[in-house]
Amino acid sequence: MRGIQLSDLNCSVARTLDVVGERWTLLVVRDAFNGKRRFEEFAQSLPIARNILTARLNTLVEHGILAREPYQQRPERFEYRLTDAGRELYPVIIGLLQWGDRHLAGEAGPPLEVTHKACGGHPEARVVCPDCGEEVDPRAARGRYLISEVSG
Amino acid sequence: MRGIQLSDLNCSVARTLDVVGERWTLLVVRDAFNGKRRFEEFAQSLPIARNILTARLNTLVEHGILAREPYQQRPERFEYRLTDAGRELYPVIIGLLQWGDRHLAGEAGPPLEVTHKACGGHPEARVVCPDCGEEVDPRAARGRYLISEVSG
Repeated sequence: MRGIQLSDLNCSVARTLDVVGERWTLLVVRDAFNGKRRFEEFAQSLPIARNILTARLNTLVEHGILAREPYQQRPERFEYRLTDAGRELYPVIIGLLQWGDRHLAGEAGPPLEVTHKACGGHPEARVVCPDCGEEVDPRAARGRYLISEVSG
Repeated sequence: MRGIQLSDLNCSVARTLDVVGERWTLLVVRDAFNGKRRFEEFAQSLPIARNILTARLNTLVEHGILAREPYQQRPERFEYRLTDAGRELYPVIIGLLQWGDRHLAGEAGPPLEVTHKACGGHPEARVVCPDCGEEVDPRAARGRYLISEVSG
């Protein structure tokens, strides 16, 4: 159906997009970062059919980004919580958010303000070098393939 | 054709995905960060039809992420270079890369190593608070809608 899978490419960007790159999936993740946990909360937020939402939630659970946990016994009800692996997508979500805020917000300005509870600052996604602590411009970095792109 | 446009949602994440969220678009951006500039370079890297690649490049030019610049006069030939706005997607690309490296690389390990030229460190995508300088965990941040989601 989908032709070549992104995961067939020997690239971590492609593989990650094979998990989260389908339409709506990253918006489900966005909602989870915004505190939504229950199916009805996601359904209210996203203008998609319930079966699509179910499929997206299942993909995220299958790949360990959300955990499906019971919150009620009779009848049994579940909620979806970000795992540690899910929270590691925070730079991607904040990166997409800040790009839209800067380039697509229009006259009305950014719709959502994210605030660091501890100090009131507004968090930013950045690429940082853990060794020297500097913010890294893409032109100051080099990429090197460790594994040949040609496979046997 | 596509039903509801993501840009109809009052959210900067959704609007950004409406620009870069189509299949292959972020891999074109990845290739641009990896130094690819010419149509044939992108075509060699991505296993997609040439008309799809043309459409993706046009979308990126239209939204100011890539600039189409002549590099030869007769016959006229163009190359595609990241703009300043395009380079602002670096945290998104590195964020996707590092998530894949951590969770999907398998036994062979990460295929690509990114190095900070200045010091040899390996850049990371992080969410940082510009006021206090701390790295921000999603649970240490709060979101507040500045514009009502309900429009008239």
